[in-house]
Amino acid sequence: MIDSNECSSITFEGKEYDTFTEPPILMKQERAKTSFPTMEVTHFLNGGEKETAKFEAVKRQIEMSPVFDNSDYYDVNGDYKKCRERTMQKVAAIAEIVTDGRDEHEITSYLSAISIVDSQSYTRIGVHFGLFLSGVRSGGTPEQFNYWVEQGAAGLRNFFGCFCMTEMGHGSNVAGLETTATYDENTEEFVINTPSTAATKWWIGGLAHTATHGLVYARLLVKGKDYGVKQFVVPLRDRSNWNLLPGIGIGDIGKKLGRDGIDNGWVQFSNVRIPRLFMLMKYSRVSANGNVDNKAPAQLAYGALIGGRVTMVRDSYTWASRYLTIAIRYAAVRRQFAQGSTVETKLLDYTYHQRRLLPRLAYAYAMNAASRHLQSVYANTTQTLANTNPKNKAAMEAAVGEAKALFALSAGLKAFSTWGTLAMIDECRQACGGHGYSAYNGFIDWTAFAVQVTWEGDNNVLALSTGRALIGRHLEAKAGPVKDDQLGSGDISQPSVLIRGWNLVATKATEQATTQYKKLEKSGLEVDKIWEKLSQLRFKVARISTRNFLVKSFFEEVEKNASPAIKQVLTELATLFALWSIEEEASVFLEFKFITAEDLSQINLLVDEYCGKIREQAIGLTDSFNWSDYFINAPIGNYDGDVYRNYFRKITDRNPRSETHAPYFLSVMQPFFKRTFEDDPDLSSLEEEEREINEE
Amino acid sequence: MIDSNECSSITFEGKEYDTFTEPPILMKQERAKTSFPTMEVTHFLNGGEKETAKFEAVKRQIEMSPVFDNSDYYDVNGDYKKCRERTMQKVAAIAEIVTDGRDEHEITSYLSAISIVDSQSYTRIGVHFGLFLSGVRSGGTPEQFNYWVEQGAAGLRNFFGCFCMTEMGHGSNVAGLETTATYDENTEEFVINTPSTAATKWWIGGLAHTATHGLVYARLLVKGKDYGVKQFVVPLRDRSNWNLLPGIGIGDIGKKLGRDGIDNGWVQFSNVRIPRLFMLMKYSRVSANGNVDNKAPAQLAYGALIGGRVTMVRDSYTWASRYLTIAIRYAAVRRQFAQGSTVETKLLDYTYHQRRLLPRLAYAYAMNAASRHLQSVYANTTQTLANTNPKNKAAMEAAVGEAKALFALSAGLKAFSTWGTLAMIDECRQACGGHGYSAYNGFIDWTAFAVQVTWEGDNNVLALSTGRALIGRHLEAKAGPVKDDQLGSGDISQPSVLIRGWNLVATKATEQATTQYKKLEKSGLEVDKIWEKLSQLRFKVARISTRNFLVKSFFEEVEKNASPAIKQVLTELATLFALWSIEEEASVFLEFKFITAEDLSQINLLVDEYCGKIREQAIGLTDSFNWSDYFINAPIGNYDGDVYRNYFRKITDRNPRSETHAPYFLSVMQPFFKRTFEDDPDLSSLEEEEREINEE
Repeated sequence: MIDSNECSSITFEGKEYDTFTEPPILMKQERAKTSFPTMEVTHFLNGGEKETAKFEAVKRQIEMSPVFDNSDYYDVNGDYKKCRERTMQKVAAIAEIVTDGRDEHEITSYLSAISIVDSQSYTRIGVHFGLFLSGVRSGGTPEQFNYWVEQGAAGLRNFFGCFCMTEMGHGSNVAGLETTATYDENTEEFVINTPSTAATKWWIGGLAHTATHGLVYARLLVKGKDYGVKQFVVPLRDRSNWNLLPGIGIGDIGKKLGRDGIDNGWVQFSNVRIPRLFMLMKYSRVSANGNVDNKAPAQLAYGALIGGRVTMVRDSYTWASRYLTIAIRYAAVRRQFAQGSTVETKLLDYTYHQRRLLPRLAYAYAMNAASRHLQSVYANTTQTLANTNPKNKAAMEAAVGEAKALFALSAGLKAFSTWGTLAMIDECRQACGGHGYSAYNGFIDWTAFAVQVTWEGDNNVLALSTGRALIGRHLEAKAGPVKDDQLGSGDISQPSVLIRGWNLVATKATEQATTQYKKLEKSGLEVDKIWEKLSQLRFKVARISTRNFLVKSFFEEVEKNASPAIKQVLTELATLFALWSIEEEASVFLEFKFITAEDLSQINLLVDEYCGKIREQAIGLTDSFNWSDYFINAPIGNYDGDVYRNYFRKITDRNPRSETHAPYFLSVMQPFFKRTFEDDPDLSSLEEEEREINEE
Repeated sequence: MIDSNECSSITFEGKEYDTFTEPPILMKQERAKTSFPTMEVTHFLNGGEKETAKFEAVKRQIEMSPVFDNSDYYDVNGDYKKCRERTMQKVAAIAEIVTDGRDEHEITSYLSAISIVDSQSYTRIGVHFGLFLSGVRSGGTPEQFNYWVEQGAAGLRNFFGCFCMTEMGHGSNVAGLETTATYDENTEEFVINTPSTAATKWWIGGLAHTATHGLVYARLLVKGKDYGVKQFVVPLRDRSNWNLLPGIGIGDIGKKLGRDGIDNGWVQFSNVRIPRLFMLMKYSRVSANGNVDNKAPAQLAYGALIGGRVTMVRDSYTWASRYLTIAIRYAAVRRQFAQGSTVETKLLDYTYHQRRLLPRLAYAYAMNAASRHLQSVYANTTQTLANTNPKNKAAMEAAVGEAKALFALSAGLKAFSTWGTLAMIDECRQACGGHGYSAYNGFIDWTAFAVQVTWEGDNNVLALSTGRALIGRHLEAKAGPVKDDQLGSGDISQPSVLIRGWNLVATKATEQATTQYKKLEKSGLEVDKIWEKLSQLRFKVARISTRNFLVKSFFEEVEKNASPAIKQVLTELATLFALWSIEEEASVFLEFKFITAEDLSQINLLVDEYCGKIREQAIGLTDSFNWSDYFINAPIGNYDGDVYRNYFRKITDRNPRSETHAPYFLSVMQPFFKRTFEDDPDLSSLEEEEREINEE
């Protein structure tokens, strides 16, 4: 049998296999271990069988499209001019799909699949629909929205919008932006200006090549008074020939760490005049004669960013699912080191390798559950906001309260999910050893994901603000002290106990910060300084609470939506996630005394044990993500497990052996390798002369 | 004064500044706070004033060289064909320097600076000198080494060596390599073969374009017997024209995550014959008639890799120092959010931002100390090995023992230093917000560093083996139980207390693993399975012990080598490092009861406090790294702090505004944006006809 032969010469069912030919056999054996119907888990992840069917249909449409042929995708990476052109071709193809009248959920699914295939085109079109048009919808009146739709914004007909918020000198602090929009009563226009070079709009996606219009964040100045930052639609280019309009200076930001296909740019304005009604006026209005009416908190106007954050939690799951599939499939067939017998052990059989990948597989499932939970909160809140009349103060206050809660939840989830996935991509790469460093195995997109921790809300800023919101809420609630709770003789592998433990540490951490807040308050410190001193605790509260939300969401989803055939494996997976998360936050569990040092040793063993259980189902649980080889786009992660053959073919296809000499052989190598070498200079004749002179 | 003005309009010494023009003023103010002579710290880091002088001289030589003009370095990144050519030009320039008879220390310094300027050329030449030639020196007899030197290996005269160890199917497990070297007594030759496709030598740096010879790891087969893996020098290319020799198949590995300038390749051998004396014979010898004499453990022959690991600890420090300089300088002048007053706060004044950067600044200093400590252990051990006669069994055993200790120490330091710096680079990038994502600010080399955690010993494999070695040593020592120790009323900010605490947890962790080992042994488990079950604990022991080594080395270096003028600030820095490291490993300190939960809260406050102290000296402590703007090669990290002006100029220089339209405007954009839109098809005539038919 396979296990009793050396891996360099393996006999199985009468045939001989070697290191190169064995892997697909191993993959079949691994897959045969699956004890549950993988498609049922796929439905669980997608939110139902119907959703799976829709998702599969859009995925097939992408695979069929010639512009999404990704066979040379990795070779083009880094060649930013070529990336830009390819990306624009894909944007055109995506536009046809997203404007053809499908329902929103189908579009979301489609874009989610696009994000895996080419995150550059996903973002490049996203700046128009997700930022510009969403921004116009949430910040403008219904009539304004309709106006811009009719201008071509809904169908990308001779129209492309970009989102001009960030400036060179100001990012996270939107309220500190410096670009000005000065109202001119005489002409009923706003005059847009860039007052200093640092106020140059910076990093604007779609600006360098594509955008005809920008949604510009600028300080509203009326009759010498500064009303703070508002939004304005500013035409940038002549739509007949894409020439810049007068007073508009645009430049290219150039090369980036990733996503070079997005034409990020910068723009300066010099006395650019726009009609008064190009200011978005849902929450603030400037009348013809210059009366300013602020109807709602300015922050509401920034709502467009929240949608982006919600999407990024889903993206974190989606990306994680792809990379975990690659690393786990590779681990199931790669052998390394012999233990005892002469046959080498599969990576996936090593306790430590299991610990590197399987808790993170559980993490991806947890993010899926949390993301779906967040999406429904987002849908409800957006609905409430849209339905609330800004003039109805009480209703508006309630809606704003809901929006704030959504903000805190989405900010924390965005921060820790994108961080989690960024780390996970690199862990998966490392788990593939050297082959993970080959561009052809997909990890080159690591840096494309890396921007997610910075844009649409810097993760650290978001985490600190989530912490502040949670502590603030706890302060307002004036709750009594949190009752101590200990594991004691409880069984830590029970979902109810895990949920209890996580809930305890999350509440205790918040209470700890609250207590510290009150102490500093008593000492007479200003509010701002108190929050500043609480930074580390704010971060801790956000981190623990977000993890608690993931743990709870995962168990809840399983309880609510898992069919009997998949309930056991998913419960084990959720248990592994919760246990491993305790290890990750062990000091907090020890600090708040839910567990003892002895319990911790026990938990370490339980994590090993649950890794062992999940190991047997790991291939099934990655198959359930249901990415075809096209989406995986990594030969060592293909479904068939024939890792070396697929990889070898990819490398030799992309790098023909007929190119035997470096193109620079004659110009660089030959002059160097065949250089002549001068000996140390022979100074004897000069020395002779000197001697003669001396003797004279 | 500057603090009382809005940042968009600041008056200082009678002049008006704005967000764009203020930063260099702030930098001057920050620099003025420095309370110690920065050059003395530079000498401390370099190991003395003389070393600084030498280092500065080689750095200037690099700056002057035209091939090291790096103004378009980032633009070329990812264009792997151009990278290859540029890199070869640099290799030629480096070769002139390293072969001109300087002392070894100067060469090391020079290469260390090169690693910052262009890690690709550093590695590409490194595979010849650091792997091929070092390998021949450590594995060959002195006569063999001389032979290859005379062939041109020392001066790169018509010669370039590569290191053919890794195979497609085998990396970390060198003993499992499959390439064969079969001895043919009749011709006194070895016949080299690739027995299966997975045995293809893979990832070999320098192979695709450059190498004339390979140091090939292959199984020695003599008279049908397998003697395990030995080393052979195999000619690969005709040195007159760089054509491949018969029986040699070479291909290009193509695109990678980074370091595209290295021509990694693969090679297969088919009946390639080499003379018997091309086998390296210091530790094993095959006589003409096929007698095999194994003189020493095979592992000694792999010594070449250890030198690489030692270098990588130094590189970890060097890279960290560059990125910390960028992020800390940027933080010192970037403002964000107002607190209380109307002027925005500098990033470096935020408690949380301090916590992100300043403990890591301390970490870099700790790596410097540990690296210098490791280098001296390495030098001594290599000397011992070189001086030991392989025939003297007792002396050889002692030397091997020393080598084993070096292996464990260097493996742990390599693993945790490269991981530490990889994480640090990304932390620094994130701390620069969006501007960190611009290629021009240097963080694009993040992925160039990323390979360090995988090559020359996968970090996880190394860490687990360090853990195993430490536990094994503890088992052998048969020491009594480790005495409990608690902080109690001790002052945790005292160096002696910190050293005591770290020593305790490192010893306790080892003891914990040892106890577990004995328990499993008693239960009758096989040795291999015991070690496997101990994986998590092995990793923990390696992690804690390595951190303990860093803490101790840092304090020791300060004690030994810091002059009075710099002792205070360096002691504070070491204290911050040790305190923050406790936070990082809080669960272990709680588990082994050196501290209580209340102590931990105290430590959190102390970390804040020490961050505050170091914050005042942070610019001085980065200036002490003494990288000129050329080496920093990141406009937001320049010495003058004029971040926005430098950055704006770099972006506009590299991306001319005259290119107003995308090159693909006519071919891709216009057809899309100006496409005509068909209405829903007008079926009325068809429907009419159908009605008529129906009516007939």
